[in-house]
Amino acid sequence: MGVLVVGSVALDSVRTPFGAVHDALGGSGTFFSVAASYFTDVALVAVVGDDFPKAGIDLLESRGVDMTGLTVEKGETFRWSGVYGYDLNDRDTIETRLNVFEGFKPQVPKGLLGSEFVFLANIIPALQSSVLDQVASPKLVACDTMNYYIEGYRDDLLDTIRRVDVMVLNDSECRELASEPNLIKASRAVLDMGPSTAIVKKGEHGALMFTRDSIFSAPAYPCESVFDPTGAGDSFAGGFMGHLAATGDTSEANIRRAVIYGTVMASFCVEKFSVEGMASLETADIERRFRMLKQVSHFEP
Amino acid sequence: MGVLVVGSVALDSVRTPFGAVHDALGGSGTFFSVAASYFTDVALVAVVGDDFPKAGIDLLESRGVDMTGLTVEKGETFRWSGVYGYDLNDRDTIETRLNVFEGFKPQVPKGLLGSEFVFLANIIPALQSSVLDQVASPKLVACDTMNYYIEGYRDDLLDTIRRVDVMVLNDSECRELASEPNLIKASRAVLDMGPSTAIVKKGEHGALMFTRDSIFSAPAYPCESVFDPTGAGDSFAGGFMGHLAATGDTSEANIRRAVIYGTVMASFCVEKFSVEGMASLETADIERRFRMLKQVSHFEP
Repeated sequence: MGVLVVGSVALDSVRTPFGAVHDALGGSGTFFSVAASYFTDVALVAVVGDDFPKAGIDLLESRGVDMTGLTVEKGETFRWSGVYGYDLNDRDTIETRLNVFEGFKPQVPKGLLGSEFVFLANIIPALQSSVLDQVASPKLVACDTMNYYIEGYRDDLLDTIRRVDVMVLNDSECRELASEPNLIKASRAVLDMGPSTAIVKKGEHGALMFTRDSIFSAPAYPCESVFDPTGAGDSFAGGFMGHLAATGDTSEANIRRAVIYGTVMASFCVEKFSVEGMASLETADIERRFRMLKQVSHFEP
Repeated sequence: MGVLVVGSVALDSVRTPFGAVHDALGGSGTFFSVAASYFTDVALVAVVGDDFPKAGIDLLESRGVDMTGLTVEKGETFRWSGVYGYDLNDRDTIETRLNVFEGFKPQVPKGLLGSEFVFLANIIPALQSSVLDQVASPKLVACDTMNYYIEGYRDDLLDTIRRVDVMVLNDSECRELASEPNLIKASRAVLDMGPSTAIVKKGEHGALMFTRDSIFSAPAYPCESVFDPTGAGDSFAGGFMGHLAATGDTSEANIRRAVIYGTVMASFCVEKFSVEGMASLETADIERRFRMLKQVSHFEP
């Protein structure tokens, strides 16, 4: 069935207590695509500059990602640099240079207008909406955002949220979007904005999934070596949407399984820089962590 | 089978964004005893001053707590006062007056020297050890502590930890005790200190349980109205030890269930001030939340 993602493709410079990389392949669309590619066909709509390295294209192609929607513009690729301390939950952004991303107007290629599973990665809310204007009748749309858009683009963001099925946020974003410190109440408030499902990512504490009449608490994968958390949220979304698109099943039971696959892909992501941790996995590696998470959360009545 | 607890009985003055209480019944031994009393017989070893209100004694008696080990000394009862902000994970201690607790020398009454399940609540490590010197051959000993003892009484604390089966800590205490920021590695380091099981309480994020060859991730109960977190950790320990003592079963499957019962009792504790949230529960209330936690964490392979 396949999944369509609109997001950023960037070059990241990251420093953690364990090492550093310069201009490594990054961006929400990239992490999402690589993660989802283990489950289903992925088509990426994004923009890069004419400085974008061939190695980046090669990696995405090696994962079978459809890049007919990737535009190459004259100029520099989006660059982000950040530093993490020993508490890997906190990061400082050193620099964000939007470059060609500033003029990004997502154009969904003709052949993808019938996409059934759509992920709106973290970009300007009005652009997220413009993608929904183009896609004919998606079966399931999921959407991410960030504090910057919650604060500065609230009305546009609410317009987008009204049109999506699954809202994916981290815990601080969820509290801020709902102006409510209690996470359970905040998540219910997000559902009142339109989506039928809200997923709250809590990093090392796992994830919560809310529908109007149920709550699912997913454990975190017990990572002993978290190396670089960059892209974990987008990798989560990739595993989540990848599993849903591969199965075409949007029942609650399957959405719960999708949350677990998202957790698994995030766990691979954080073990190395950039997309290295997800570059060459086997299905068996993914299934092993899925089963581990089942054991980790199991108790008998 | 019953459980023996050694801890504090105090009068707490607490302010949260939702209200305030003055000289309310508190202390680790109190919260533990009330929580455990729903599962098994509880005997409390503690000290109070001659100012301790009859209402406090009445409440513990109404829960059937054996108080032959409760000493009444001339002087004032241990008093603690603290303030919570909207982030209920953070609290400021305003004042701690040990009073008669300063001279506390726990004496286990003769009739309780054969206790099989023992909980060493958060008191000076050397006193925790002195209890173990008295009890003949316990089947399972669990122990709590706090940052203050980790920092100032490290050698004594390590002596105690070496002798216990289950170490119960919160996440920041676990990281500090092990001098290791990664919680998975830190918990393994705690197991290397002696215990066969380490339980890490993470407040609104649930709890983790570690043995030498397994990890259990317990969900938090989704509380929409957290009113006062004081005593949550001791109530968790009460539900945990209460279930173990009631069943006499220390298999891993049953220890996992005990963690869930601990989570349930903590969820009742935080909904009101002092022990009010746990003062008059029915078994059906407890079982309902247990089943809810099963639903909340369930996914199919």
